[in-house]
Amino acid sequence: MDKIFSDKEYLALAVTEARKGANKTWQNPQVGAVIVKDGRVLATGYHHQFGQQHAEINALSHLVNMEQARGATMYVTLEPCCHTGKTPPCAKRLVDVGIRQVVIGQLDPNPIVSGKGVKLLQAGGVDVKLANFPMTINHAYNSFYQQQRPLITVKYAMSLDGKINKQTGKRTLLTGYTAWLDSQHLRAQQQAILVGEHTLLVDDPELTVRQEILLYPPIRIVVVHDVNLLSSQLMLFKGDAPVWILSQTPLKQSLPGQSKVFVNAEWTPQAIIALLTKKGIQSLLVEGGSHLQAEFISQQLIDQLVVYIAPKLLGGGGLPAVAGTPLPQLIDFKQFTVEQVGADLRVSSRREV
Amino acid sequence: MDKIFSDKEYLALAVTEARKGANKTWQNPQVGAVIVKDGRVLATGYHHQFGQQHAEINALSHLVNMEQARGATMYVTLEPCCHTGKTPPCAKRLVDVGIRQVVIGQLDPNPIVSGKGVKLLQAGGVDVKLANFPMTINHAYNSFYQQQRPLITVKYAMSLDGKINKQTGKRTLLTGYTAWLDSQHLRAQQQAILVGEHTLLVDDPELTVRQEILLYPPIRIVVVHDVNLLSSQLMLFKGDAPVWILSQTPLKQSLPGQSKVFVNAEWTPQAIIALLTKKGIQSLLVEGGSHLQAEFISQQLIDQLVVYIAPKLLGGGGLPAVAGTPLPQLIDFKQFTVEQVGADLRVSSRREV
Repeated sequence: MDKIFSDKEYLALAVTEARKGANKTWQNPQVGAVIVKDGRVLATGYHHQFGQQHAEINALSHLVNMEQARGATMYVTLEPCCHTGKTPPCAKRLVDVGIRQVVIGQLDPNPIVSGKGVKLLQAGGVDVKLANFPMTINHAYNSFYQQQRPLITVKYAMSLDGKINKQTGKRTLLTGYTAWLDSQHLRAQQQAILVGEHTLLVDDPELTVRQEILLYPPIRIVVVHDVNLLSSQLMLFKGDAPVWILSQTPLKQSLPGQSKVFVNAEWTPQAIIALLTKKGIQSLLVEGGSHLQAEFISQQLIDQLVVYIAPKLLGGGGLPAVAGTPLPQLIDFKQFTVEQVGADLRVSSRREV
Repeated sequence: MDKIFSDKEYLALAVTEARKGANKTWQNPQVGAVIVKDGRVLATGYHHQFGQQHAEINALSHLVNMEQARGATMYVTLEPCCHTGKTPPCAKRLVDVGIRQVVIGQLDPNPIVSGKGVKLLQAGGVDVKLANFPMTINHAYNSFYQQQRPLITVKYAMSLDGKINKQTGKRTLLTGYTAWLDSQHLRAQQQAILVGEHTLLVDDPELTVRQEILLYPPIRIVVVHDVNLLSSQLMLFKGDAPVWILSQTPLKQSLPGQSKVFVNAEWTPQAIIALLTKKGIQSLLVEGGSHLQAEFISQQLIDQLVVYIAPKLLGGGGLPAVAGTPLPQLIDFKQFTVEQVGADLRVSSRREV
């Protein structure tokens, strides 16, 4: 019997499965799988959570019996793995159970897998079809392996005259509750959040996500001159999310349990990004302040921009958004998305790579 | 016979008439009139152009004969005038032709007329009804008499990080053609445009409206330290629109024909606004630069804001929009209108009075 739907339609179903793992797969990609035989969908599955079974294995586990797999087609959004990591290799398992054809949405950009999963399948006699399906998931995961650094998002709230504070050294509440909720959601999508020392001391932020319960809350990272000068009363030390302190001076005292200290002579944006890349952090939200953001932007270390704009004027004495280090050549995002969030405006841009 | 439509509907028709005079009545208000008798609209009219006959007289002139006016109702968007200015008083004429009732959209805020037109009509035996119809025309005219100063609009184009130039002293082209067209239209609605000396010398703008043919092009106003230092080659001296130069030093040389020089020890925003008010200028567009705009804003001399936002970053070395003079208390517009203009964004806000 012929297939009732096209490869694209079965892959779209697999993507829908994959999305179920949103916010739970952490540094693993979201993956979905669909098993089709004789025109019928026999089973679907997805990667539920970091460290748990992969989508292919999850789909197989939903078959009535493993005999059903023999001669079937598996649609999977990402190339099956070929290595024994936290779980045994999926490609080998697909060969073992007699899957006849695998249709893959995209190759795995992770060099441990990339292309090798396909080879393992083919060596096992499986027909492999690469669909190059346009992917709307795993944006940070893909970007991390393509750029070999985290996906960097810069976010700030400003007035209609481009100021973030009425004056230096004081916090001005510009945007409303809806914008705050939206920015909480933006945080929830990150593996790490970064603020500079000035923001840490002026705003005393907790840098947590209070609106969503997260299995893997973003790591809270702060850049400081001397970690030993930080008060343990800072809001940063509240909550359960990990805290990384990037200091120029080694730690001489004890700090609350969830904190780690990294020491470097100078924490330039490049040095920060090198550390995060080494640690496998795939996404970073640079939340402030103006000067730290200007440093990142001056080094073209920005992939996405999220700006909340309040219909207010702070005037000529206000602290500008992105202040300090000059940018040699302007960055043109070309496109933007705009929406109203409560009484404020949200403009976001993704850089064309 | 009863009226077929309500007073509101006839007034709405009168407003539609009034709109036909847009951009042509200059310092006169746009006014429309509708003559109704026995449920029939007998004639409509509007104020065509500054200095020409008023809407009421124009409507009367469209009657088959003046006998028709006797016993009729006139709907007029603005209180009929009572003074002999460029034309004889309308209120007297309405009495003379035997109009039975006048329904007025709003009282004239101009103190020469306000309430006196109504009194003259009533003294002549005419029944007067004041509708307090919500007016969407004559925004600058009404504001001028309410605030006793011009309606002030501040306009600039900025990047997504609130900068107007990559660096001081150089012009950066941020926004595209559609935004330029839009800003030309914004200019066309003004009675005067203002720029500071720095903008004049760095940008060398013509400050004219090239996209529309205007009977009353906005007066081009520049604030300078010494008018004698201005080159007659400046683009400002091109075109036919009047040029006013606000200088601290009296003129010692000759200037191109359409220029006028005003001398004052210091041209603060207050001094500028006092001059324009005295000259009857009802609307002013403060086009730049950042510092002049900051001065106006610091004095709360702003009614409307128009910001074009380009999806670009100019970085930490860029010149901020509205820079310099601090604003003691933030200005909250509360509301805004946002639209996409070509590849850019246009955000505008009107201050709640």
